[in-house]
Amino acid sequence: MQPSGVITLLSDFGTKDPFVGVMKGVVLERFPSARLVDLTHDIAPQDVLAGAFWVNAAYRHFPAGTVHLAVVDPGVGSERAPMALEADSHWFVGPDNGLFELLRQRAVPSRARRLAAEKIGVRAPSRTFHGRDWFAPAAALLASGRVRFDDLGPAHEPSGALALPAVAERAGALEGTVLVVDRFGNLITNLEPRALPSDCQVVIGNERVACAGTYADISPGALVAYIGSFGQLEIAVRDGSAAGRLGAGPGTKVVLEGPCR
Amino acid sequence: MQPSGVITLLSDFGTKDPFVGVMKGVVLERFPSARLVDLTHDIAPQDVLAGAFWVNAAYRHFPAGTVHLAVVDPGVGSERAPMALEADSHWFVGPDNGLFELLRQRAVPSRARRLAAEKIGVRAPSRTFHGRDWFAPAAALLASGRVRFDDLGPAHEPSGALALPAVAERAGALEGTVLVVDRFGNLITNLEPRALPSDCQVVIGNERVACAGTYADISPGALVAYIGSFGQLEIAVRDGSAAGRLGAGPGTKVVLEGPCR
Amino acid sequence: MQPSGVITLLSDFGTKDPFVGVMKGVVLERFPSARLVDLTHDIAPQDVLAGAFWVNAAYRHFPAGTVHLAVVDPGVGSERAPMALEADSHWFVGPDNGLFELLRQRAVPSRARRLAAEKIGVRAPSRTFHGRDWFAPAAALLASGRVRFDDLGPAHEPSGALALPAVAERAGALEGTVLVVDRFGNLITNLEPRALPSDCQVVIGNERVACAGTYADISPGALVAYIGSFGQLEIAVRDGSAAGRLGAGPGTKVVLEGPCR
Repeated sequence: MQPSGVITLLSDFGTKDPFVGVMKGVVLERFPSARLVDLTHDIAPQDVLAGAFWVNAAYRHFPAGTVHLAVVDPGVGSERAPMALEADSHWFVGPDNGLFELLRQRAVPSRARRLAAEKIGVRAPSRTFHGRDWFAPAAALLASGRVRFDDLGPAHEPSGALALPAVAERAGALEGTVLVVDRFGNLITNLEPRALPSDCQVVIGNERVACAGTYADISPGALVAYIGSFGQLEIAVRDGSAAGRLGAGPGTKVVLEGPCR
Repeated sequence: MQPSGVITLLSDFGTKDPFVGVMKGVVLERFPSARLVDLTHDIAPQDVLAGAFWVNAAYRHFPAGTVHLAVVDPGVGSERAPMALEADSHWFVGPDNGLFELLRQRAVPSRARRLAAEKIGVRAPSRTFHGRDWFAPAAALLASGRVRFDDLGPAHEPSGALALPAVAERAGALEGTVLVVDRFGNLITNLEPRALPSDCQVVIGNERVACAGTYADISPGALVAYIGSFGQLEIAVRDGSAAGRLGAGPGTKVVLEGPCR
Repeated sequence: MQPSGVITLLSDFGTKDPFVGVMKGVVLERFPSARLVDLTHDIAPQDVLAGAFWVNAAYRHFPAGTVHLAVVDPGVGSERAPMALEADSHWFVGPDNGLFELLRQRAVPSRARRLAAEKIGVRAPSRTFHGRDWFAPAAALLASGRVRFDDLGPAHEPSGALALPAVAERAGALEGTVLVVDRFGNLITNLEPRALPSDCQVVIGNERVACAGTYADISPGALVAYIGSFGQLEIAVRDGSAAGRLGAGPGTKVVLEGPCR
């Protein structure tokens, strides 16, 4: 696989401090012509599930051979492995803590390596900033083509768990869960119906929500369920926040009823 | 006109979710050497006027031949047209909803095209993320030189309205309106005096504000009116927020009195 | 010294308005192949000390020959000089107000120039946006190699003061101060011990905090002091905010007791 020269970055580092900029400096030192794209750095601190969701949703929109550097890492400084993953013609670099499990479940087959300090030139890494000391150098070397994936370290079996809510089918209805809330307050769930006929309904809390093609089809202030731009069932309020209106967020249960699959 | 290879991005998508990063992936897939610059993604949700103001203020500081991709799009998924505009040696891509009206009024002449799906390679677009499915591909093709402006689709007459507050002259005074509030709480108006002699005064709410060259000329905590860096009359509190102090914001009326034009 | 072609940007401009994007346009007009990296634009308005801290912490992770453009500038429009600094194989461009004092104290020797309008092509600069009108053009010319450092203007002796809290040694203990709080609420101090044996303790307010290698070594919710990733003594709460828990922030006194240096 040929590197595209593009590296994406996703983290919970925020943008208040220059942690992300420093990672980019480390990349550019090793790979001066890297093209760097931020996915987001405003993952809620330590919300591995949200990180996993967005890495999986975003990567496929980049050229094959792109390296996706992701750091949401409650266990930084502990024994969890630093890893790289090759799947679906993309590479992923970050901690082995479940951050890549969502995509690993779908992008079959995949192969993983445990990053080896001597292969990446890691010397005296800090215990709190592995994004800078481990993952940025590994991403730079991989994206530049100077180190091949298989030379990043020994073969590795990812062990990081991800507390991924299950989807259940019961009495003809699909039961799912809100995974993330986007900036507009739209609720993005783990249900992925192929189609949403208008005689489908979504039950969330005490509300029963009608399905439509998108929020443009309904009146301002009304609730609607539709298939969002990444393929998931979403619940929104037109010109408002469904999260605020329903008091809902990650973990809220959602039931999809009717002839939708 | 030769493309500069630069694409700017402005939206109300925020940076909490990777929507902007995904648009950049779509661009890089089609135009690997694109140079991407964020203007801002923190336009208040659906505030088309603020988007229009900042696109118009910012574009002229970029090289000729730059493509400006702007998405503040309350009507996404409805019938408003996806469009491209050529004006003042720059290109603009986004929804036909008034977002480019401010610059179209000034950068005369201009020409518009309605984006055609088959010209841009749009297949099965989502109904909620036209930034990714329509505008990013169009911007990439235009900026790369692979598709010429006139080949983006049929000629188009922009119909998008913009509720732009008027400037009135009454009894020797100019009446205007606050358009946007910047991060420091400075009030940026739609008045554009060439000069502000010190015997001019600005009336806003119950306050009468003296004019000066800039806030460095006054004492901390004092109110001042001056010509801001984009040519507009601004009202500020030195080392403080004029928006907070005056309870003012977009839509607040402002009157400029005295020998200033 | 050869330019790396990289320009970093740090400011208190925020990302709500396109001020940073506009500076990048000005750079790209003069140096089309510039590689631009944001350090942060969320320095608290006019917090020169926080800007000075992060410029100094971040620059060394970039390639030699990088230009660091920094603007935290309460005195914009007044008489403070626009300057450039060469130190430790890097260049720095911004206002002479103390923003570069922290690194100038360490990166000895250094040389400074006062930016001259005619060398940089500054015409009719605004009085409120020197980032766009002075510093971005200077950074672009320097990073592109089109103007050499010594040709930016006359030799200059920086006069900008920085109210930098002192470190004191008293009765075998080191007394320091919190300089900045990071996004996680960790308190970063001006103490830089080489090592932190576990029989060291940190006193902050009414709390006595044990030292450890990092927060991964302690239980969730516990306080800990450790050497952070930029070499400073930091105080954190595992999975929480030390700033919130201790009611501490920039200026809070910290005492390090025990056999640590």
